[in-house]
Amino acid sequence: MNSISHLSRREMLLTSGLIVTGLSQPSLGQNPGSEKDLVFRTTDPNNAEPALQRLVESWITPTKYFYVRSHAPNPLINASDFRLSIEGMIRRPLTLSLAQLKRFAEHSITATLTCAGNRRNEFNREGNVGGVQWEAGAIGNAKWAGIALADVLKHAEVLESAKHVWFEGLDQIEKGDAIIPFGGSVPIEKAMLPVSNTQTHPGVLLAYTMNGKPLTADHGYPLRTVVPGYIGARSVKWLGKIVVSDRPSPNHYVATAYKIVKKTQAIDWSEAGPIYRYPINAAIASPNPNAVVAPGALTLTGYVLPSGILGSRVKRVLVSTDSGKSWTSAELTGQDNDYCWQLWKANVQVTGDTTELIVRATDNRGGFMPARVPWNAKGYLQNSWYRLPIKTR
Amino acid sequence: MNSISHLSRREMLLTSGLIVTGLSQPSLGQNPGSEKDLVFRTTDPNNAEPALQRLVESWITPTKYFYVRSHAPNPLINASDFRLSIEGMIRRPLTLSLAQLKRFAEHSITATLTCAGNRRNEFNREGNVGGVQWEAGAIGNAKWAGIALADVLKHAEVLESAKHVWFEGLDQIEKGDAIIPFGGSVPIEKAMLPVSNTQTHPGVLLAYTMNGKPLTADHGYPLRTVVPGYIGARSVKWLGKIVVSDRPSPNHYVATAYKIVKKTQAIDWSEAGPIYRYPINAAIASPNPNAVVAPGALTLTGYVLPSGILGSRVKRVLVSTDSGKSWTSAELTGQDNDYCWQLWKANVQVTGDTTELIVRATDNRGGFMPARVPWNAKGYLQNSWYRLPIKTR
Repeated sequence: MNSISHLSRREMLLTSGLIVTGLSQPSLGQNPGSEKDLVFRTTDPNNAEPALQRLVESWITPTKYFYVRSHAPNPLINASDFRLSIEGMIRRPLTLSLAQLKRFAEHSITATLTCAGNRRNEFNREGNVGGVQWEAGAIGNAKWAGIALADVLKHAEVLESAKHVWFEGLDQIEKGDAIIPFGGSVPIEKAMLPVSNTQTHPGVLLAYTMNGKPLTADHGYPLRTVVPGYIGARSVKWLGKIVVSDRPSPNHYVATAYKIVKKTQAIDWSEAGPIYRYPINAAIASPNPNAVVAPGALTLTGYVLPSGILGSRVKRVLVSTDSGKSWTSAELTGQDNDYCWQLWKANVQVTGDTTELIVRATDNRGGFMPARVPWNAKGYLQNSWYRLPIKTR
Repeated sequence: MNSISHLSRREMLLTSGLIVTGLSQPSLGQNPGSEKDLVFRTTDPNNAEPALQRLVESWITPTKYFYVRSHAPNPLINASDFRLSIEGMIRRPLTLSLAQLKRFAEHSITATLTCAGNRRNEFNREGNVGGVQWEAGAIGNAKWAGIALADVLKHAEVLESAKHVWFEGLDQIEKGDAIIPFGGSVPIEKAMLPVSNTQTHPGVLLAYTMNGKPLTADHGYPLRTVVPGYIGARSVKWLGKIVVSDRPSPNHYVATAYKIVKKTQAIDWSEAGPIYRYPINAAIASPNPNAVVAPGALTLTGYVLPSGILGSRVKRVLVSTDSGKSWTSAELTGQDNDYCWQLWKANVQVTGDTTELIVRATDNRGGFMPARVPWNAKGYLQNSWYRLPIKTR
């Protein structure tokens, strides 16, 4: 299998017979969930998010309610043939089977993943943005088990001059005439951090289970990265290759997509750096948008995610029924772990003048949700005050 | 002189006798201006800004009132010995004298330069930030003449794979045990843009005059880059070397400084990209901070700089005397050119309750000054509402 890295990706895929795309893998729950569980924004590939009221029913998000973000059909991977290759600026190139990977110490962490495009549809108020038209459900909190990327890299003996670690998926994305894998990249300092069950470290996990079961095909079976604190795009699914380098990955999804740009010409991408950490964010899960409510007492529920920084904790969640003139503190109802969201509940008084409910939040690392976020062409990192329109009887 | 590029920078500087640091060059007005003209934040090296009332006396900023940002003593450069070397991913490496450089077509542009740290001192309200403690005077608008970087690069025949262009100064900055030059970097797309007298292009100028006179030593004599639309740090003074590369410059001032970070550990720098364009900004130049004014009519003056994007124009400048409850439109009084600031004037009513004057602005490229900017460890890009405290009789 070492020879794979000397073949082009496409040659490998076509000659190895390792991959068949576009098929499902029922035995592993490849079916992305019925329409009842998720709202599909696209079905080829699968991009879906849950109804917000379902999403906040529990602090741990059931896999069936966990948003799905894919750039190509799920690759069907035969676990016994699967190999992960580790290449680049290391002394000992490796090609490891799942059995070999599982000889490293197992770790499990609970971590929230959120798409950089979560709440993208709100940018359309100022100007249309392309991409999957996410509402506020492209976020979820799961328990992940696997091995520490740092342990694998130490075994591979990383060179001093290494600065970034690339991840490459086994998916096949059509880009113009080319077929490319989804790629991610993290700084070497992040990659070398330990992973701890006690949640005191932000290290990168090479995960093979989600919520106690093998990853589903939609979530990266058989192996994916989970990068706590970073946007979901750095948690690469169907992980097939790791490359240690002196620069960020040149993959399209690092060098071009997932950047904050006003326009999308070459110069705009060149001027922008990749997004790594996610900012603080929050949304109202109930009532529903445009719900008709009676003036008087109303209970709001929702989620809040502090900035993706170690030790970041939610400081305040504030809700308003009068367009921001006055604010009421919400009560946090979830567990309080590093790199995890919190659920919240707030009791407010709705008047006949109430036309929208608003939530904003702050954390102990200086994170705050601004009243407005500058529009960007790809609609990333929308974390302005979350405004939910309602009607009163 | 072609051999220079094969010597280490320090060897060159020490053996060539080309550079003597820390001396002044009176004949060229090296003297950075008297205390009357500029307020010195540091004198070794020179870092100084004008009083704001002086700054807005004219749309073109007289050189004596133009802010000075230096990282080392001014190098004393003998113009007749000066050479600019162009290296890296080009087919034809060049080493050019000033006379040879001046054989390229001359262009002149009016462009505003602003330090990424302008208004840095305001961040201290939320947490101390290091660096030169700029108030709002680290900005100026001058007329620059020189040659187009694009013309020189075309002559040097840039390779297809080039992605960025590095600039290296002839200054000598002590960093720990090392001595490094100040360095800048721009994407190749920016570097290859034409420079136009009609202000319709954002190209990079290799400038040798400022406001019709040779550059002063404080402003980069004999040659500097002027990069319209970008933070001042990319307009490298005392330019000695240009390197064409496939990545941004590894120089400290691109790879580490001039980035938006919450902390300053290695991982924080790795996660952040270099800052290129400046955002919209504005300040109140008169009255003075803490001025005692009588309730009644008051005229405010100030500057506004639209986002560093081609065709960016100021849309609205709004001032408030009641802490943002109500706003009055200001009148623009300067010329309206690409990449140039505007001056403004506003007549307002001050009441006995007025404790501060506020200005905010928007442009036609989606730029706006937010109520608050997230604190960052180096205090860059402070463009929140500018608040001026006053007292009323």
